[in-house]
Amino acid sequence: MAVKGNIIIGQSGGPTAVINSSLAGAISASKAAGVKKIYGMHYGIEGLLDENIVDLREAVKDEKDISLLMRTPSAFLGSCRYKLPKIEGNEKVYEKIFAILDKYDIQYFLYNGGNDSMDTVKMLSDYAAEHGKSQKFMGIPKTIDNDLPITDHCPGFGSAAKYIATSLKEIIADACCYGPYRSAVLIVEIMGRHAGWLTAAAALADKVDMIYLPEVAFDPDDFIKKVKELSKKQNSVVVAVSEGVKLADGRFVCELQTGDAKKDAFGHTQLSGVGAYLAAMASEKAGVKARSIEFSTIQRCASHLASRTDAEEAFNVGYLAAKSAFEGSTGEMVIIKVDSRAPYVSSYSKFDIHEVANVERTVPEEWIINDGTYVSQECIDYLKPLIQGEVDAYFSDGVPVHISLED
Amino acid sequence: MAVKGNIIIGQSGGPTAVINSSLAGAISASKAAGVKKIYGMHYGIEGLLDENIVDLREAVKDEKDISLLMRTPSAFLGSCRYKLPKIEGNEKVYEKIFAILDKYDIQYFLYNGGNDSMDTVKMLSDYAAEHGKSQKFMGIPKTIDNDLPITDHCPGFGSAAKYIATSLKEIIADACCYGPYRSAVLIVEIMGRHAGWLTAAAALADKVDMIYLPEVAFDPDDFIKKVKELSKKQNSVVVAVSEGVKLADGRFVCELQTGDAKKDAFGHTQLSGVGAYLAAMASEKAGVKARSIEFSTIQRCASHLASRTDAEEAFNVGYLAAKSAFEGSTGEMVIIKVDSRAPYVSSYSKFDIHEVANVERTVPEEWIINDGTYVSQECIDYLKPLIQGEVDAYFSDGVPVHISLED
Repeated sequence: MAVKGNIIIGQSGGPTAVINSSLAGAISASKAAGVKKIYGMHYGIEGLLDENIVDLREAVKDEKDISLLMRTPSAFLGSCRYKLPKIEGNEKVYEKIFAILDKYDIQYFLYNGGNDSMDTVKMLSDYAAEHGKSQKFMGIPKTIDNDLPITDHCPGFGSAAKYIATSLKEIIADACCYGPYRSAVLIVEIMGRHAGWLTAAAALADKVDMIYLPEVAFDPDDFIKKVKELSKKQNSVVVAVSEGVKLADGRFVCELQTGDAKKDAFGHTQLSGVGAYLAAMASEKAGVKARSIEFSTIQRCASHLASRTDAEEAFNVGYLAAKSAFEGSTGEMVIIKVDSRAPYVSSYSKFDIHEVANVERTVPEEWIINDGTYVSQECIDYLKPLIQGEVDAYFSDGVPVHISLED
Repeated sequence: MAVKGNIIIGQSGGPTAVINSSLAGAISASKAAGVKKIYGMHYGIEGLLDENIVDLREAVKDEKDISLLMRTPSAFLGSCRYKLPKIEGNEKVYEKIFAILDKYDIQYFLYNGGNDSMDTVKMLSDYAAEHGKSQKFMGIPKTIDNDLPITDHCPGFGSAAKYIATSLKEIIADACCYGPYRSAVLIVEIMGRHAGWLTAAAALADKVDMIYLPEVAFDPDDFIKKVKELSKKQNSVVVAVSEGVKLADGRFVCELQTGDAKKDAFGHTQLSGVGAYLAAMASEKAGVKARSIEFSTIQRCASHLASRTDAEEAFNVGYLAAKSAFEGSTGEMVIIKVDSRAPYVSSYSKFDIHEVANVERTVPEEWIINDGTYVSQECIDYLKPLIQGEVDAYFSDGVPVHISLED
């Protein structure tokens, strides 16, 4: 294929442990195709609008840098939360973007992110089609939430799931160490506001007793009843709960907090996490000693514990997005297809971005079992291949080595 | 040396990532010395009082099991928080313990723990001396808090410090990914109620701006002033704070919370962590967007990220405690001496348990610099060797493999 002009790559939304592997793939494909200038958006499309552009041939020089990039957490290029406005009535924004692309002779535009980012790719490719622009726009999937449709799963998810399963194994061993002498109810809060994929990954840690996903209504009375029953039977009870669990009426469980309990120490409304809330509820109503742990942002950036399967797939979708653009594709997202789960065999394809953008894929209801308190074997079989393999970090002075734009 | 009778080993207090390495060392020394029965206290001395005893030749059969034990987090034998009462007036408890030891022909008693556990060793060896008992009692140091005296540092600390430095590097990369477009103040709360060693380890992550230890009084006004100043100069501000930071008048900083802010959703007094409190304070008084992350128990049980230096030293102190007991030592704790920090060379010795028990060693004041907001190079030089090297976990099905008594 003959490339015409330069390429630019952007990272957007919340980071993952392997978003930089997709960047590594896109850079590698661009170098392989002989693209002259490989640009990076510094802070996504928000940075691009400020012409905040970096030279990726300079920043990622050789295979050693590629290798480090694949071991670097968070967004190497910086990320953004900027959502492009709709085209109609906001033509100036689009004109500005295309003027910058033209100025740098950028013919290929790759954007790596989740739902909002795919929406950006959709609108830019629509604008290009409407206005006879030559640029090609390709989406690279990325989200720890695993909620993009059509693709079997999303790069970033497998590593977060591996972190969750591993850390759960460790903290459960810790929490249960007093055995019958000090019983404990441990509530672990896991990310996922609308989709329960990450919380479902708690099932990979074995000793989790109950798993609550946002896909099914949460019943506080039933929760208390089950905690009481389990506490009678066993020394420790472990509950994984998604930050986004909701009541039957649609309210988030943590919104049950009323009055001053909703306020922080300075009177601002600040709902405590659902984990802390359920621990307090279990103490109050089930009469057990309960405490909560929140994995917070660590679960999405623990690159020292990345899944090799995930990292390799992230690299490949980045590589193929660039290659497809060079071959003339536009307005599409690269997707992962799983041809066999055991043994695990995956392949890649592309799909119309219009079918992807703004569609959220949640855990199928039939995979949620035991009155909404666990996930099925089919779900576990779906998850397990995605956390296989490790990406050994490079350590120096006792901590992992990363690459950064400031280096 | 000729061993006379059997050995029992107990684990006590909060677990660490390498407490089982000390157990592995003690088992290995016992096997090497040809001890017939190697017993473990199931749930520490609390379990021993219930004759809750396990056969460690059975539970840890071979070198493969030893190797797995060194990769297993938390206390393999189970732990306890039981504090032996003083001898006077509680002779019955002591008579019971010695009766159990006699029943099983146990001549060697090793206890692995922190301050309280060393107190247990002290009282048991005192009782043995007073009553002409033949048993030998040795202490094996263990605490992530690093607050035992005389020993240069404590097994368990290095691995927790490595976890903190690594995870901080990762979450700082995550928190700073929006650069100038979304500034952030990140407060990370780290364990350590009285000693700031673990929080000091935040300095090993480089990009931490301020480090607050419990050893010096915390000044809220100065904190706000410094957060404001830093926020003007840089996109992100990262603060590491020990859970135990105190005001000049001795109150814990989190006790500043008053009224309903002290209550959980069900009206129980439940102080939020100091990290969450300082984040709320920074938002309120410095007008910045601040959030907090609490490492919680994960920092003490992440065996997948253990320090090899720490694991090897933990093994050695366990081995030497057993060997010393066989050679006739009693009423002592094995200590680590550092002969050279760079290159790092450590050796071992023993010390009178009376000098160790109930003495708490904190970070020297002269190592705390910048108005109590950072630690000195000397402190960093002290810490750095302790986090060197890795203990590669054995993965199966994507998660680390551990060994447990139930296996």
